[in-house]
Amino acid sequence: LVICAKGVELESGALMSEVAHEVVGDRPLAILSGPTFAHEVARGLPSAVTLACADNALGAAIAAALGGATLRPYLSDDMVGAQIGGALKNVMAIAAGIAIGRGLGENARAAIMTRGFAEMVRLARAKGGRIETLAGLSGLGDLVLTCSSAQSRNFSLGSALGGGESLADILAARESVAEGVTSAPAMVALGKLLAVELPIAEAVDAVLHKGANINATIATLLARPFRPEY
Amino acid sequence: LVICAKGVELESGALMSEVAHEVVGDRPLAILSGPTFAHEVARGLPSAVTLACADNALGAAIAAALGGATLRPYLSDDMVGAQIGGALKNVMAIAAGIAIGRGLGENARAAIMTRGFAEMVRLARAKGGRIETLAGLSGLGDLVLTCSSAQSRNFSLGSALGGGESLADILAARESVAEGVTSAPAMVALGKLLAVELPIAEAVDAVLHKGANINATIATLLARPFRPEY
Repeated sequence: LVICAKGVELESGALMSEVAHEVVGDRPLAILSGPTFAHEVARGLPSAVTLACADNALGAAIAAALGGATLRPYLSDDMVGAQIGGALKNVMAIAAGIAIGRGLGENARAAIMTRGFAEMVRLARAKGGRIETLAGLSGLGDLVLTCSSAQSRNFSLGSALGGGESLADILAARESVAEGVTSAPAMVALGKLLAVELPIAEAVDAVLHKGANINATIATLLARPFRPEY
Repeated sequence: LVICAKGVELESGALMSEVAHEVVGDRPLAILSGPTFAHEVARGLPSAVTLACADNALGAAIAAALGGATLRPYLSDDMVGAQIGGALKNVMAIAAGIAIGRGLGENARAAIMTRGFAEMVRLARAKGGRIETLAGLSGLGDLVLTCSSAQSRNFSLGSALGGGESLADILAARESVAEGVTSAPAMVALGKLLAVELPIAEAVDAVLHKGANINATIATLLARPFRPEY
C-alpha cells in the first residue's frame, strides 16, 4: 500500500502509516509525499517526490513502477520523517499567509517558514524521524510550495485572516478544504504528547480556534528570547 | 568583526571568514546572514537572521547588541555552515527562475529549491559545517526568500533566461548585480575541490557561461537515475 494521504488522526495523533498498520496488519507500506500541485503533475510538468519505505528494495521497485520522465521519486527509508512534513506544512502555510496578509513582508514569511521548518524537525525527531528526510521533498519541498504559492488554499486562508476577515466568513465563502484549520489543534496536541515546543503551530491554533488577537500573537512570538537555532 | 558579505573568493574558494582571518589574524569573527531584503529591515518589519560565532558567549553578546524588537538573531557556533547558504543560494535562485521563466511550474521550482538545498548541505558538510545550520535562517531561510520573490535579482535574471533572453542582453539592460552569475563557476570549482556533486549549480554554470542549451540541460537533470534523497 502506498499512502498518499497527509495528516494525523485527530483523536490519537497517529500517523497515516500507523492507522494503516492497525487496519491491514503487516502488509508492507510506503509513503508518497512531496511538492505536487495535482494539475501540474497531470499536465506532465516535472515534479519530484519522496518515496519512503522501510524496505529499501521494495521502495526502489515502487519508485521504478511509479516514476517516469517527469515524476521523479527520491528514495528514503524514513517513513516517520516523510509523514511529518505533510502533516505540519499546512499549519505553517496559514502562518505565512497571516504574515503576508497583515503586510509584515517577505522577510517575515521566510523567517516563519524557517522557524516552522525547525518545528517540523523537532516533531519528527521526537517521533523517530530524521532531519535529512525533513530537509527533502516531503518536508522542505512541500513547505516551500504551500507557503509560497497563491494557489495554496491554506496560504490564501491565512492571508485573508491577516487582512482582517473572520474565519467563519472565509470558510463560508469557499467550498475547498484548508486542512491546516483542522490540523492545527491536532499538531498542537501531538506536540504536547511528545513534549515538543511548537510556538508557531500553537499561535496559529490560538488565532484560529481560541479567539487570540493576531497582532498580540505576533508580538508574543517576537518577544521570545534570542536563542540557538537548533 | 561581524561579516555581512556573502560568497567565496573566486580564485581560492575561501569563505569570507577565511579571507578575513588572513587579513586580521586572530581577531574574533562572527557571521550575520539570513533572509533580509534591506528595505524591509529598514522599515522595521520583522526579520530573523543567523548570528554565528565560534565563541558562544561573544555570539550572545553580539546578538544582544544588534537584535531588537523586530530584528531577531538566532545563535549558532557553526560559522562554516552559516556561510555556505549565502554563497550558493543565488545560483539556485537563477535555476528556480529559469524553471519559472520556461513555464515548468511551481512543483519544478519547489523541487529545484529542495535539491538545491541538498547541494548546500553536501557542500557545507564537506567544509565542516552542519545540516542544522543550513536548515536555519542563513541557509533554508535565505534560499526561500531568494528563490520565491520577484524582488530577487538572481531569480528575475533566471526567469528572463528561461523566457529566452540572452545573458548579454539581460546584463546590458540592468544596473544591479546578480551575484549568482559570478558565483556559479566559483561554486562549481569549490565543489570539485571538495569532491562534492553539485548538479544544479553545474547546470546553471553551463547555461550561463558554457553555451549549454536550456532544454537539453533540463532533460539531462531529469534523466538522472532515481536515488536516495540523502
